[in-house]
Parts: sequence; C-alpha cells; structure tokens
Amino acid sequence: MKLAKSLQEIQPSYIREILSAACAPGVISLAGGLPDAKTFPLALMAKSLIDLPNQPQLFQYGNTAGYTPLLEHFSNYYQLPASHSSIICTGSQQGLDLIARSFINPGDSIVMEAPSYLGAIQVFGLAQANIESISQRADGPDLEELESCFATKDITLFYAVPDFHNPTGVCWSIDVRKKVAQLCQQYNVAFIEDVPYRELRFKGEFLPLVSSFCPENSLVLRSFSKIATPGIRLGLVTGRSDWIAPLNKVKQAADLHSSIPMQAVLLNLLQHDGFEQHLEVLRGLYSERYKALLDNIALKLPASCEVNEVNGGMFIWLSLPDCDVNALAQTALEHGVAVVPSSVFYQERENVKPALRLNFTNANIDELSEAIDRLAKVIEIHCK
Amino acid sequence: MKLAKSLQEIQPSYIREILSAACAPGVISLAGGLPDAKTFPLALMAKSLIDLPNQPQLFQYGNTAGYTPLLEHFSNYYQLPASHSSIICTGSQQGLDLIARSFINPGDSIVMEAPSYLGAIQVFGLAQANIESISQRADGPDLEELESCFATKDITLFYAVPDFHNPTGVCWSIDVRKKVAQLCQQYNVAFIEDVPYRELRFKGEFLPLVSSFCPENSLVLRSFSKIATPGIRLGLVTGRSDWIAPLNKVKQAADLHSSIPMQAVLLNLLQHDGFEQHLEVLRGLYSERYKALLDNIALKLPASCEVNEVNGGMFIWLSLPDCDVNALAQTALEHGVAVVPSSVFYQERENVKPALRLNFTNANIDELSEAIDRLAKVIEIHCK
Repeated sequence: MKLAKSLQEIQPSYIREILSAACAPGVISLAGGLPDAKTFPLALMAKSLIDLPNQPQLFQYGNTAGYTPLLEHFSNYYQLPASHSSIICTGSQQGLDLIARSFINPGDSIVMEAPSYLGAIQVFGLAQANIESISQRADGPDLEELESCFATKDITLFYAVPDFHNPTGVCWSIDVRKKVAQLCQQYNVAFIEDVPYRELRFKGEFLPLVSSFCPENSLVLRSFSKIATPGIRLGLVTGRSDWIAPLNKVKQAADLHSSIPMQAVLLNLLQHDGFEQHLEVLRGLYSERYKALLDNIALKLPASCEVNEVNGGMFIWLSLPDCDVNALAQTALEHGVAVVPSSVFYQERENVKPALRLNFTNANIDELSEAIDRLAKVIEIHCK
Repeated sequence: MKLAKSLQEIQPSYIREILSAACAPGVISLAGGLPDAKTFPLALMAKSLIDLPNQPQLFQYGNTAGYTPLLEHFSNYYQLPASHSSIICTGSQQGLDLIARSFINPGDSIVMEAPSYLGAIQVFGLAQANIESISQRADGPDLEELESCFATKDITLFYAVPDFHNPTGVCWSIDVRKKVAQLCQQYNVAFIEDVPYRELRFKGEFLPLVSSFCPENSLVLRSFSKIATPGIRLGLVTGRSDWIAPLNKVKQAADLHSSIPMQAVLLNLLQHDGFEQHLEVLRGLYSERYKALLDNIALKLPASCEVNEVNGGMFIWLSLPDCDVNALAQTALEHGVAVVPSSVFYQERENVKPALRLNFTNANIDELSEAIDRLAKVIEIHCK
C-alpha cells in the first residue's frame, strides 16, 4: 500500500526514536520528558492496584468519555460549569490528536509558538494544517506578532503550553495570559491550553489558566504522566460541551475508550490523602536537580552557552554558539549523554537557533554533573 | 470551532450510544459485543496485577510499538517471519484506525462486506474513504461481485472479519478464503483481516487465516477483548514491516503508546498455564448460551423470523419480516431488551434488510429466555 499523503511529510518523533538509545547502559539521558521512576506514587496506588482482581466490572467495555466516577471527580475538582464537560483520553497526546481530527481540515491555519512541542507539530502535521509560528519571548508569545497573525489570517486555533513550556521552560506572565485570552476572543480563535507541567511549579506564584480568561473560547488539555505516572497513559480534555462532543465521536473510532482499570487506579490516587504530599516531594526533588544542573552548567560550560532560568517544569533551554546542533547531539549520544537538538522543535527549519533541550527530572544529581562533564567535551568539539 | 469536514457525515456509534441504556437496571442486553464479566480470567491475572506496585519500570514511558517482552511473545507465538513485525494498539479498534490513517486518502476506495462492523464503517468514514459494499453469502463474500469490483475499480484494501463475522456470525469457507487471497494478490488489494472472534469457535474445524494464503498482501488485526478482557484496551496488528512502520509513526501522534502495566498483565495471562483451559470454559459457556438462544427463538418467535446457525463468535443475525427495524429496536428497549437493528451495519442505507444482531455471550440462559419473551411481544407489535 502507498502511504497516505498526510503521512508523507511527517518525520518520526526524534524523541520517541532515540528513547531506546537514550536508555542504553551507560547513557545519561537528559533527552526525554521522563519523570524519575523512583518518584512514582506506587505506594499510594498499591491498594487500588491490588484490589483490581476483585473488580470484574472495571475490566468490561466502558463509556467512551471515560470511567464515570473519574469524570465526576474532574467535574468537581476543576469546578466545571454546567455547560462544560470532559473526556478522558489515552494520554493528553490523544486529546490533542482528537482536537485536530475534530476541527482541522487540510490547509486550515493554526498557530503555535516557535519552538514548540514536537508531539503537537506531529499532530497538526498529520492533520495537514498550515502551521503559523509566533516567536517566543521570556514571558510568552510575541503579542504584536500574534495579533498581526490573528488579524490578517483565518486562524482556527492557537495551541500553547503556557506553564513551563516544552521545550523552553518559559512560563507566561499574567499580563500575557490576559492579553492572549482577549485576542483569542476578539479574533474568534480557539485557545488550546496544554498544561502537563502546571503542577510542577517549584518557585514563584501560581498563575491562573489562560483559559480562565476565555472559558468559552478554549479547551484545556491535562496530563497525568508527570504527576501520576506516564505508563498508565491517561489525560483529560475539558471545555464547552459542544466542543467536547466531537472528540467523543472521533474517540469512538480511535480506540472506543481508554483503559478502565487504569482510570480507576488514577481516581484512587488523585483522592488519596497522601497525593498532595507526593506532589510536594516531587517539586522539592525537581527543584534540587534543576539547581544542580544550572550550577554544573555555570561551572563547566563556556559563557557562550546561555541558559534561561525556570520556575518549574522539566526542561531548560541551553542556547549554544553557532554550530551544527544535530551533529552535536549525535556526538553527545556517542559520548554517553542524550540531549534533544533545537531543530526538532521547529516547524520552519530555517529559523532554528542552535540550542539543546535539557531535562532535569530523570537523572539524579551525580548523573547531571557527569552529563555536563560529557557535554562540555562535546561542545568543545562542535562549537569552535 | 466548526467541525472538520471528515466528521460532518459521521454518525455516532449506535452501539456506543445505547451502551448506558442497555446497562440500565431491568434491561437485558443482547446489544453490545460484550463478553460476560463473570468469565474474565481475573484469577489468572491476579498475580501480575498484585505485583504491579513493585514494578515502577512498567509505569514509565515506553516504546510506541509496545512492551518489548509482549512483542517478543507475539513474534514467537504467531511465528512471524523475519520480514514481518507487530504493533500493540489501544484495542484492535485503534489498529484499524491507524491503518486507515496510514494508507487512505480522502476519496480512495476500499471494500467491505455488507453488512459490516460498525466501528470499521466509522473509521473508513472518518478517513473519507469511498466504501464499496460486497454482498455477504453463507460462506463469505460474493466472489463474483468481489472480482468485478476489484477488476473495475482502484481498490486500496479489503477489510473483513472472516471468522464469525460481526454482525452476521458468518465464517468463511476454506475455498472462499483461498479465492479471496488469490484475488487480493491478483489485483494488488491489501487484505485487512480482523479476527477478534477467532478463538471463540465452539463447533467445526479450525480454518487457516485468509492472510496465510497472501502473507505479503495482508495485515492481521487481533483483539484481546474477547479472550482476555475488553477494559484493558489491547489489540495487535501484525504484517510486513514496511506496512507496520507507518502505523508506528501515526501512533506516536495518536497516543505515544498503549498502557504498559496492562501490556505486562496481558503477557502474563497469555503465558499462564491456565489460559487454554480458560478459553475452553469460555467456548463451552458461549456454546450453551447460543443453543439456548436458538431454542428460544424456535419456540417463541414466528417462523417468519429466520436465524442463521453459527459455529462460534458472539452474534446471530435474526432476519425479520418487513418492518421498521429502528422503531422495533426502540420499542424493544422500552420493553427491557436491548438489540441492534440491521440499519447500523450498512453503509448504503437503501440495501438494508430488516434484521437484528443478537449477542449471546453477555446474558445468561434465563436472561436469554426472558429476552426472547420480551422480543416476541415487540415483534408482534411491529411485524404485522
């Protein structure tokens, strides 16, 4: 069979492809957005996991929108208005794919920041959307560029990660949040707010969702991969019911529904007395590792390597002097450190500035130190 | 946001939509393709479920193609040649969706039998395929119609359920299998063989896969919903590696990968000493229920209601005298019995013959008897 046209332009995910290489013995991975498996709240999940064999009803077919008690929990927890609803997805990645399949025709224009989440580039690429890129500043998207784009083009949606952006770690300021919401309303652009890292804030003040300023004009994507565990593959989309209904229709064809035993276990975890404490521990640990990574970079890398400070999330963005960043990442892997080159986070390849996305949540402090030792040598080779 | 064009023609799944109504207290459901939850092999799965809290590595992100030990098991168990590979999906429903997204452009023609599996009609509808329907006979598709269709049209693939077809329960004869494989090779049509009910044969001789006669021209979709449990949402696609690779690329965007804890539990179940015995018990139970359903129909329904005999699977197809089959199904629900009207299994509505799909695996013998009592009254009202 010949490949469908929609697939012919899609590159396989660099990050998914190097996951196995990054996990090879001796390699320290700063590549994936992997939480540390040692932090998984399995002790809090144990009771419900162990009880699964006694609950045959959880192993039957279920509703497409999700396990009813979990949907009710979300409705209460996120205080959804009566006109809103939710759908539980096989990871928030599926939520994004369902949105694209529900609302994007080939050739429709959508907006993302550049750089942006690779999984979103893939989804909108498969949907054959025309992706408009907006530059990212230290406090969010460039608002002039954004308004000019909204004003001059027919834009269906703006996809963004306002809390500790993947790959740069940027967190949008409150003013930018309000302004983006206002622009989305003014120009009738749907705001797709992806917040997988929102609970991983270890510094600074909690900021309201962009969507809270335009609730009828947005959908919120939540992930349980970072605060629970990734392997269970559960995410959530919330928003106005007439925008959730089509996702339900596509999900019927896509996978009928997501794993019910895993949804029951997630519900139990989210309602566990120890869950808040688990998040505190996670934030404390990731904060320490972040500081260790920054210290190592300051100590060991040349001053021409610049890093932005972040208040949470899983990544920092290390700007490099002029070099072939793909070749550098390849050499880094050969030297036992896996990193992701900036090139993979751009839709328009010509605008790529040499940089690396470094993850600080998976490796421990000793490994982070060793990783930067190795990276220092690689940078010396490539950035002359 | 406006609905994408691909979605505007798609009806929500009747079966998914009535699942909650069918589960209401007092309703006996012969509607869904639900196994009996009492048969779930949870005792065989208990050890690995209880051990999950001790296996943090199963809760981390994993490879898109699936949990490696499970992939290795399938490779051995199904004796895949070196040029073939597999991908584990979030239910075989996802496998089918990945195939359509990988190989179908809007307007491309595909072939299905009529009637056909509703979930497949949805998938190919979303892909905006042009669906060519081939009549089904007692031993498989009408071969003359099929060859004429292959010879005169540019067909990408033929999707079929040769073992205990959904909705009719028809099992293709060996001659039909060989002939379809030969035609697919001759006209370069990919054969997509969906075999969710294959292991549920309770009578007659085991027949080879159609794909075994054209292995380089086919993909096989397997489901673990009927032989393990549906709630874990796991299926499998096997076939030539260059046809599996694109599925992998789409799955990266669709959900990254399927639940790893569930894959580990499935592996353990499939390798359990007691698994073959579980299948025997299942076949025995379903065979008894099938016979009870047939006996009740013969005893209680008018002779104008005709039923085909089946050798396995989950469904029979009850042909009715002329009536409004949708209205009849609605009345049946009001009388406490959920059934699926023939109309939902056809792409071309004009060819619909009045019939009901009756499931015999979910209700017990007493319930089946009561269900046919209720149905008899409803048929009396509607088929005059």
